[in-house]
Amino acid sequence: MEVNGPNVRKYLERFIAKPHKKIRLKKFDTGWVKHEAFKAKSEEEAKQFLKDLLAKDRGDLAAAQDILAASRKYGILIVLQGMDTSGKDGTIRHVMSGVNPQGCQVYSFKVPDAEDHAHDFLWRYEKVLPERGMIGIFNRSYYEDVLVVQVHPERMEDLPAAIGPDVNGFWEGRYKDINAFEKHLVRNGTVVLKFFLNISKEEQKRRLIDRLSHKEKYWKFSYSDVTERQYWDQYMAAYEEMLESTSTAYAPWFIVPADHKWMARTFVAEAITSAITGLNLSYPEFSEEQIRYFSEAKKQLEEE
Amino acid sequence: MEVNGPNVRKYLERFIAKPHKKIRLKKFDTGWVKHEAFKAKSEEEAKQFLKDLLAKDRGDLAAAQDILAASRKYGILIVLQGMDTSGKDGTIRHVMSGVNPQGCQVYSFKVPDAEDHAHDFLWRYEKVLPERGMIGIFNRSYYEDVLVVQVHPERMEDLPAAIGPDVNGFWEGRYKDINAFEKHLVRNGTVVLKFFLNISKEEQKRRLIDRLSHKEKYWKFSYSDVTERQYWDQYMAAYEEMLESTSTAYAPWFIVPADHKWMARTFVAEAITSAITGLNLSYPEFSEEQIRYFSEAKKQLEEE
Repeated sequence: MEVNGPNVRKYLERFIAKPHKKIRLKKFDTGWVKHEAFKAKSEEEAKQFLKDLLAKDRGDLAAAQDILAASRKYGILIVLQGMDTSGKDGTIRHVMSGVNPQGCQVYSFKVPDAEDHAHDFLWRYEKVLPERGMIGIFNRSYYEDVLVVQVHPERMEDLPAAIGPDVNGFWEGRYKDINAFEKHLVRNGTVVLKFFLNISKEEQKRRLIDRLSHKEKYWKFSYSDVTERQYWDQYMAAYEEMLESTSTAYAPWFIVPADHKWMARTFVAEAITSAITGLNLSYPEFSEEQIRYFSEAKKQLEEE
Repeated sequence: MEVNGPNVRKYLERFIAKPHKKIRLKKFDTGWVKHEAFKAKSEEEAKQFLKDLLAKDRGDLAAAQDILAASRKYGILIVLQGMDTSGKDGTIRHVMSGVNPQGCQVYSFKVPDAEDHAHDFLWRYEKVLPERGMIGIFNRSYYEDVLVVQVHPERMEDLPAAIGPDVNGFWEGRYKDINAFEKHLVRNGTVVLKFFLNISKEEQKRRLIDRLSHKEKYWKFSYSDVTERQYWDQYMAAYEEMLESTSTAYAPWFIVPADHKWMARTFVAEAITSAITGLNLSYPEFSEEQIRYFSEAKKQLEEE
């Protein structure tokens, strides 16, 4: 079977959260894998196809990153969100290993400290945005500030009373701030790609039990994983509101079916690769004068 | 031929700048490749051996990085220095691609700005040191502040007059500051590995002419590459003094033979891999109480 992306790309579209449209996560199949889509005869064959495609994408991505760095016109910001165990770390590892680490920076944000709380909620993320020519990956992001904080509003205690949470305007204000922030980034040459790794509650249970069944995976288990699971419905409600409020034409959200890791990884790889190659970047052009200078420099070296 | 490191590692030793010893760079062969050392019959066979070993090291390094991240005891700081075209970028790309980008941060330092000049010379580097569990790579580093600045002292104009350059004590003071800084890092759990990619003036000429002979490599050429070459001898003198003043038992310099790119890359890969595996790290251990908690959590999930 031929390994190429178009079959998958055609299907990427349907997983974009349409701007200004109501989002019902129940309508997005977390276990989606339509093997007919890849002209595969079985799920097993589809899996192999997607793995081969991922390997191809990794090569394409390395090449695309090289031109991105040489041309220095755009930066790429990749935002990864998802519930615990949804596969954020694994996606980064499998999609981005192969890319020159000099052109790729990953940030995993920790719990905000007192200095972070003393600033506006976007402050700590702005400091580590990718420069032009670079791919920056936010493993969790400022979207936590409308997700975990919405489920656990007590974590916002440091906000000045004057602009403190009011049920009707506060979150809407944050969504608007995020949209304005991303618009600003896009206007200034940053491509913003946002992926929500969408797993089912059942699949999370399987993955947590797996972690708890293998000694060498214990360190990945966090005490909060089980307690946070009790808030699953509140999280889904927060995700839905966030997705419908912040998926825009200039910075859309991809709702990635993530119950199958190989599906999610190839999906993300395809979306990133097609976004970068879609910029139609090329190695820098040089003027006749510059080329003349290069010839002279070469002659000078040869005659040394 | 068996692919393993010991043959190469035995030879790494002789390229360490011995602390407190006079360094004569002329005695370090930039084109070194002793094919007998690798039990190879020819240079061609040695090249293939080293390439296979590099591929193996890349895998070992990815595995070692995973344990490094899990154990969170040490951070790794890799400093790369070398003249233009000595292969710093290529070494990073070939040695580190394969490593999970989430555990590896590369910094390429630009010309210092006014804010940098307003601080002590180590300030801008301290801000981006690797945290425990991470590999940080400095593509050029604070060593520029005793190299390029020693060759071009006019670039230091912002220093307050009171502590301004005096021929007899200034550079020695900087070396001492660097040694104290690195001692502090080592004491606090950062392993410091320093590589000087040592190429000959003749090899630099070949590489510059190569860049100027291929349109798609033009963008890698900098106007300063040819002018800086005029200061080759001053740079070598600055490197010698720097190497003998800052190669210490706790943070030694490797003087890497770099005329052959495949030799340099494998050399660096071997040194990093053996340094990390030499830490004998393991995945975190858990107490009986923690393990009991994990069992309970698992049971709770299964009964959900």
